[in-house]
Amino acid sequence: FGDKRDMTQNIENQYKQQAARLALERVKSGMRLGLGTGSTTAFFVDLLGQALQNGELHGIVGAPTSERTRRQAEKWGIPLASLDELQTLDLAVDGADEIDPQLDLIKGLGKALLREKIVEIHAQRFVVIADESKLVRRLGAGPLPVEIVQFEAPAHVRWLGGLADRAELWRAEDGSPFITDNGNFLARLWFETGIADPYALANALAQRPGIVEHGLFLGMATEALVAGADGIRTLRAKA
Amino acid sequence: FGDKRDMTQNIENQYKQQAARLALERVKSGMRLGLGTGSTTAFFVDLLGQALQNGELHGIVGAPTSERTRRQAEKWGIPLASLDELQTLDLAVDGADEIDPQLDLIKGLGKALLREKIVEIHAQRFVVIADESKLVRRLGAGPLPVEIVQFEAPAHVRWLGGLADRAELWRAEDGSPFITDNGNFLARLWFETGIADPYALANALAQRPGIVEHGLFLGMATEALVAGADGIRTLRAKA
Repeated sequence: FGDKRDMTQNIENQYKQQAARLALERVKSGMRLGLGTGSTTAFFVDLLGQALQNGELHGIVGAPTSERTRRQAEKWGIPLASLDELQTLDLAVDGADEIDPQLDLIKGLGKALLREKIVEIHAQRFVVIADESKLVRRLGAGPLPVEIVQFEAPAHVRWLGGLADRAELWRAEDGSPFITDNGNFLARLWFETGIADPYALANALAQRPGIVEHGLFLGMATEALVAGADGIRTLRAKA
Repeated sequence: FGDKRDMTQNIENQYKQQAARLALERVKSGMRLGLGTGSTTAFFVDLLGQALQNGELHGIVGAPTSERTRRQAEKWGIPLASLDELQTLDLAVDGADEIDPQLDLIKGLGKALLREKIVEIHAQRFVVIADESKLVRRLGAGPLPVEIVQFEAPAHVRWLGGLADRAELWRAEDGSPFITDNGNFLARLWFETGIADPYALANALAQRPGIVEHGLFLGMATEALVAGADGIRTLRAKA
């Protein structure tokens, strides 16, 4: 018997696997797939790899959103291609850190938000998979990650502080700033009572030089598969 | 006697120096200065260095917009500091590739557009110095540079092509893509009849994941000093 933390982790992992399994039912042979990053998506990539190996699916081509997911997909022999080759993706599957009732998301605590957003804007359908702990009534329950240019990074973090209750350069335990797959730094923003207007915030971040990309994924998800104690809920975005 | 091209170059350099000299008159001792990048600004940094060495100016602190300008400033012993330390700049001086009648600019053919924009948004006044060949009636007479993420770069260039008559990854003579000081690639966009709505274009570019920054500097310049055959014109932005 593990301790309570281990048990919670085990149950969360069961939920994540359930959501990943339902997402696999959305995949048809021949599809071009965006492959997300993170613990929930890792279950999906494993299930996808198994389905290709045992012949349940064939003709899949994937576009990975991180070096981590690329390595996992390659391990399973999942064929990969560039977005320029694929042009459009039929479906993208990825986790999220927060999901609100409109299916607007916060993503990026896995540190891959820029590549995730690049891939997922190319997808005709974007299915989010999560355990129920990710559902929020308002975005900003936890930190919002923002990818920033290394050059003059403290000035960007200072500016970000003016948009939130608190902003910090995101550092590893040894104190050095995390560096993304794209060679940038990350900041995290905290909002004591959540994000009042995610669209206004996203626009301010988009316009600012030195901010490369942010973790608000607005109007992008078409469906969320959320597993919890009462089973799996399927949430669909209003068209 | 050089050939005609050399003569044109000589005259252009005289104009650039004249504009740089007039910009130096805007500089007062104790100012925090943004230092641009490019051939015209290089004249300004030399004049600034001389004025500090001969005691005409003192107490200047600079924020450079490229590794190139940083080296030039260090050679002259110009004190430098970060934007986080300086917080606000009293004045930024930089060149431009195109200047329209509203003092909206295209910059970035010197490949430093992201750092230039980061520095120049911190300036209370932004003086553009140029020879008269940079004046255009409409932006887009030449190419618009755009800094893009290396990841999936061909997909970004393809998307950019939909906003312009032509878009290309910007490559060195040996065929390899240029890499900016920030580790990104550059694309160039061409517009056969110029850019119809620079603000709409800037907004589309700002919103797109994978586009780090673009060479449209809109509503930023407060003054342009433009030297030519008829002397130096001083153009001021409408408040």
